[in-house]
Amino acid sequence: MIYLDNAATTKPSQEAFDRARVYAEEKFYNPSALYNEGYALQGELKTARSALLSKIADESAFELVFTSCGTESDNQAIFSFARRGNAITTAGEHSAVSAPFAELKNRGVLEPRFAPLQQDGRVDVEKLLALVDEKTSFVSVMHVNNELGSINDINAIAKLVKQKNPRVIFHSDGVQAYGKIPFRLCKEVDLYSISAHKIGGLKGVGALIKRKSLLLPAYVIGGGQENGRRSGTENTFGIKQFEYATEIKFNNLEKDFNRLLEYRERLWELLDKNVFIRVSPESGTPYILTVSAVGLRGEILLHMANDKGLIIGTGSACSSNAKTRYSKVVLACGHDTKTADGVLRLSFSSDTTAEEIEQAASILNEIGRDLKRRMQ
Amino acid sequence: MIYLDNAATTKPSQEAFDRARVYAEEKFYNPSALYNEGYALQGELKTARSALLSKIADESAFELVFTSCGTESDNQAIFSFARRGNAITTAGEHSAVSAPFAELKNRGVLEPRFAPLQQDGRVDVEKLLALVDEKTSFVSVMHVNNELGSINDINAIAKLVKQKNPRVIFHSDGVQAYGKIPFRLCKEVDLYSISAHKIGGLKGVGALIKRKSLLLPAYVIGGGQENGRRSGTENTFGIKQFEYATEIKFNNLEKDFNRLLEYRERLWELLDKNVFIRVSPESGTPYILTVSAVGLRGEILLHMANDKGLIIGTGSACSSNAKTRYSKVVLACGHDTKTADGVLRLSFSSDTTAEEIEQAASILNEIGRDLKRRMQ
Repeated sequence: MIYLDNAATTKPSQEAFDRARVYAEEKFYNPSALYNEGYALQGELKTARSALLSKIADESAFELVFTSCGTESDNQAIFSFARRGNAITTAGEHSAVSAPFAELKNRGVLEPRFAPLQQDGRVDVEKLLALVDEKTSFVSVMHVNNELGSINDINAIAKLVKQKNPRVIFHSDGVQAYGKIPFRLCKEVDLYSISAHKIGGLKGVGALIKRKSLLLPAYVIGGGQENGRRSGTENTFGIKQFEYATEIKFNNLEKDFNRLLEYRERLWELLDKNVFIRVSPESGTPYILTVSAVGLRGEILLHMANDKGLIIGTGSACSSNAKTRYSKVVLACGHDTKTADGVLRLSFSSDTTAEEIEQAASILNEIGRDLKRRMQ
Repeated sequence: MIYLDNAATTKPSQEAFDRARVYAEEKFYNPSALYNEGYALQGELKTARSALLSKIADESAFELVFTSCGTESDNQAIFSFARRGNAITTAGEHSAVSAPFAELKNRGVLEPRFAPLQQDGRVDVEKLLALVDEKTSFVSVMHVNNELGSINDINAIAKLVKQKNPRVIFHSDGVQAYGKIPFRLCKEVDLYSISAHKIGGLKGVGALIKRKSLLLPAYVIGGGQENGRRSGTENTFGIKQFEYATEIKFNNLEKDFNRLLEYRERLWELLDKNVFIRVSPESGTPYILTVSAVGLRGEILLHMANDKGLIIGTGSACSSNAKTRYSKVVLACGHDTKTADGVLRLSFSSDTTAEEIEQAASILNEIGRDLKRRMQ
C-alpha cells in the first residue's frame, strides 16, 4: 500500500513511540502530584515545551501551551480573542478556523470578514489589509493551506496588519507548516497552532504557541494545568512522543524539504497532462501536490486508486464530514466546479520513497485514462 | 514503591496498550478519510463507543461522544446547558465542575447555586432540592467524590430534581465512579462524564455520555467529527486503549469492589488511632480511604511517606495548582482546618495487593508517630 495522504495524518514515528513508552509504564504519575515521581514529570513537560517551541521561536518571547489537538488550539485562539468589533480570516482556512468564525457570526458578537484567495491559494494580502480597520480585534491567516499547499508569508502579513492596527491579535494555523517548512515566528505573530499527528506524532496532542506577554484565557478550565491555560491531566505519553517525533522531523527538515520538492515535481512530470491539470502552486509546500482530473470525479478516482493499493485524498479529510461535494477552498481560488470535482490531493511524508512516486504516477495515469475513456 | 494515589491517575493497562498498539502502527489512518482503511476506523470507533456505553447505560437511550479528558467533558456539559436562570452544583465538586461554575458567575450569565455537603461528603439532597426552582436550567452532582469517596445516589437525585422541574438538564461527573462501582444510568440523567486514565486508560481520553434525544452543541468545533459534537481528528489509539482497559476493568468490577472494600477496612483497622481519624465514610467507594492526622500537615507526611517508598495523595492532585492550603471539600463536610490540614488520601486500584496494604499501614503509622513526636 502506497500512502500519499499524509496531510490528513501521518504514520506515528515508531522510534518516538518506543522512546515515549516509559511515560505509559513506569512514569505514569499525575504531573500535578506533590511527590517526587509526579513532580519530576513537570520537568519533563517543561523539556518537551522547550524542545517544541525552540524549533520555531525565541523562547524569551514565546511560550507553549499543550492542548488536545490543532482544532482545540484554533478554537482557543479564536474564542479568546475574537470578541469585539470585527475579526478577519481567509477563504482558505481549515474548518478548525472557518467553523468557529461561522459560530461567531451565529452568536452575533462581532462581524466576521473573509479575505479572498489568489489563484495560487494564498490570501490576497492587499484585500486582507483593506478589511483591517480600527475596530478589528483579531486576524487569523493559515500558514500552509491544507488543500493546496500554498504558503502564506504570515510574518510579513502580521507586520502589515499591525502597521494598520497595532491592537489586532494575530493568529496563524501552522498545522501543515510546523516541522515541514523552514520558518521562525516573528514577534508580530501572537498565536500559532500546531498538531502532533501531522509530523509523526500521535492523534490527540496539539499545542498553542503564544507571545509571552499575551494574556491567554483558558478554554478548558478546571484543575489549572498548563499554568492555568488548559486544564485536564497532562497527556504525558502523547506529549513526550510529540517531542521525540518533532526532534526527528526537525533534524531532517531541510533534507526532507529538498527531497520532497524533487519528488513532487517528478510526480507532476510523470502525470498524464491529457488527464490532469495542476492545481497547487510550485511555490507551495513540497509536502502537497494537488491536481485535478477535470471532468472526472475525484472521489471515484480515490476509490479506484484505493483498489490498486494507492491511498490519496480529495482535499481535507475533515471536510468529508460536511458532505459538501465541492471544496470551497478550490472554488475560492477561482477554479470552476468541474475542476473542483476532479481534485486529488497527493501528500507526502519523510517516509515517502522515490519508488512510491513512480508507482503512484503509473496508477494515477492508468485509472485517470480508464475513467476518462469510460466517461466518453 | 507502593502506589496508593490511584484516584489521581492509574498505571495504564499494559495489556490494553499492547492490544491498541496496532492503531498507532498499521491502522494509523484518519478516520474521516474516504478510502477503505480510513473508513474502516469509523467502525472501530463505533465498537469502542458501544463497548464503553453499554457497560453503564441502555444503548437505545444514550450515546457517547469522545473528548480529550474528563475536564473537557464537564466543560462541554456545563457551558452547553447552564445558560439561563440559575444552575446548581454541590460544594464537593472537582475543579473541572467548580471552575466552570465560577466562570459562569464571572460572566454574569446566570446565578450559580451551591448545595452544601453532609459530614459524610454526600450532597445534602434536601437542601439541593430547595435550591431548584422554575428558573433552574442545569444541575450537576458528582457521582463519587474524588477526595472523600462519598457516593451520591445520582439516579435518585436526578429523579427528585426532575420531579420539581422537568426542564432541568441533569449532569454528573462520573470520573471516579465509572468502572469502579456497580451502577447503571437511569433516563433522568442527561449527561455523564468519564475519563480513561482513572481506570487503566491513557491520559488524554475522556467521553461525555448523553441522553440520545438531547441536542448537545459541540464545544470544540471544526471538521465535524463525533457527529458534529467534538471536532479534531479522532484519537483512535487512545480510544481503543480506553475500550480495552474498560473491558478488563468491568470484567473485574465486582471482584475488585469486594476485595478493595476488604483492603480499605483492613488498612483503616491497622492505622494508629492515636494519630489518624477517619474522614471518608464507610458507605463510600472501596477505592478511597481518606484519613486525617489531625494537628499534623498532610503535605509533610506525604513527603515522609514518599521517602519510605509509599506514594499517597493529600486530596485532589489537581488542586495542587491552586496553591490553597486547605481542601474546601473537607471543610465543606464540617471539618475544622486542623483536620483539613492533616488529610491524606489513600486510593487503590485493581493492582493493589494485600501486602501493599500491610506495608502502607506500617509506614503511615511510623511516620505519623514520628512527626507527632517531633511536633510535641
